[in-house]
Amino acid sequence: MNKNLILQNIAKHIQLNKKEADYFLTLLKEHKLKRKQFLAVENDVAFVTKGCLRSYSIDTNGFEHILQFAPVDWWIGNMRNLIPQNNNLLNIDAIEDSEVLILSRHDQLKLFDEFPKFERFFRILMERALVSANRRLMDILALTAQQRYESFCKYYPTLINQLPQKYIAAYIGVTPEFLSKMKSTALKNT
Amino acid sequence: MNKNLILQNIAKHIQLNKKEADYFLTLLKEHKLKRKQFLAVENDVAFVTKGCLRSYSIDTNGFEHILQFAPVDWWIGNMRNLIPQNNNLLNIDAIEDSEVLILSRHDQLKLFDEFPKFERFFRILMERALVSANRRLMDILALTAQQRYESFCKYYPTLINQLPQKYIAAYIGVTPEFLSKMKSTALKNT
Repeated sequence: MNKNLILQNIAKHIQLNKKEADYFLTLLKEHKLKRKQFLAVENDVAFVTKGCLRSYSIDTNGFEHILQFAPVDWWIGNMRNLIPQNNNLLNIDAIEDSEVLILSRHDQLKLFDEFPKFERFFRILMERALVSANRRLMDILALTAQQRYESFCKYYPTLINQLPQKYIAAYIGVTPEFLSKMKSTALKNT
Repeated sequence: MNKNLILQNIAKHIQLNKKEADYFLTLLKEHKLKRKQFLAVENDVAFVTKGCLRSYSIDTNGFEHILQFAPVDWWIGNMRNLIPQNNNLLNIDAIEDSEVLILSRHDQLKLFDEFPKFERFFRILMERALVSANRRLMDILALTAQQRYESFCKYYPTLINQLPQKYIAAYIGVTPEFLSKMKSTALKNT
């Protein structure tokens, strides 16, 4: 288990003593995924220690729309049943061979009761995820496809070369052909 | 101050004793807004006790894009500086004469230190807001304008008749003329 990576991730927002860190680590379950393999989580969260995952939905016409990418050192989940009226079925799968540490919702809630400082950690994580989701919402409504691509490059500089182009297209909300055309136009203009 | 309404809102997720409730209420500041008046908050949160507010951004062409509506019993904020790379400037204003209770970020953080159960309350609030934001993101990418309008009606049934049509159009991402056309087509089909 890549203990150091996840403990360093936690240490960005809260300080743990040895007892707290040891207890936390006992709750995690290691899970390996082959490329294209689904991650079956309901309200559980997964921390990526190798590879890259994505969450996405499929519309009635069969098109995939990507909500989030999760490379190494990111958290991902689908929070499927957290609110009753949520009918949005998100899938999570591995873009390449990957490894994650899973914290089940049950264990997460137990952890909050046991050590409330973890509630702080996940409150901060949720706040940041919400700021990002809101920014992306405004981007989709206000920006052109070209500007959304530039915004993606700016916010996820490490992902640009790591991800297959079709996934970036599905995130921005254009076809892979349109993305390719946009990129060649941008190159000509530089 | 509408103490009961906000205490009932808090009681949906955590139970407070008298000392905790009293302390919490001392941190709130009442604020009245006239229609179209801006609410100046940075990372503070506001709880609506009368009227209705909205948060929105204005794109480079001068078009407004609405992120959120906040009728009575809802929370609203812009979390402007919570993450460093967030350059999204959200405005908040009152759609009608309104009243809010403001909890400053400074006092919120103090509250978390004093009574960690409030950290639970806002963690849950953030989780739910994130689920909603993610669902809306997927809606914008996957649904037609007509389906987005139906989704809005389903999730915000109380807002349909309360809000001026131009605001609903700015939320869905269509012009008011297109919304009006869509609604008359939907009526013909029923």
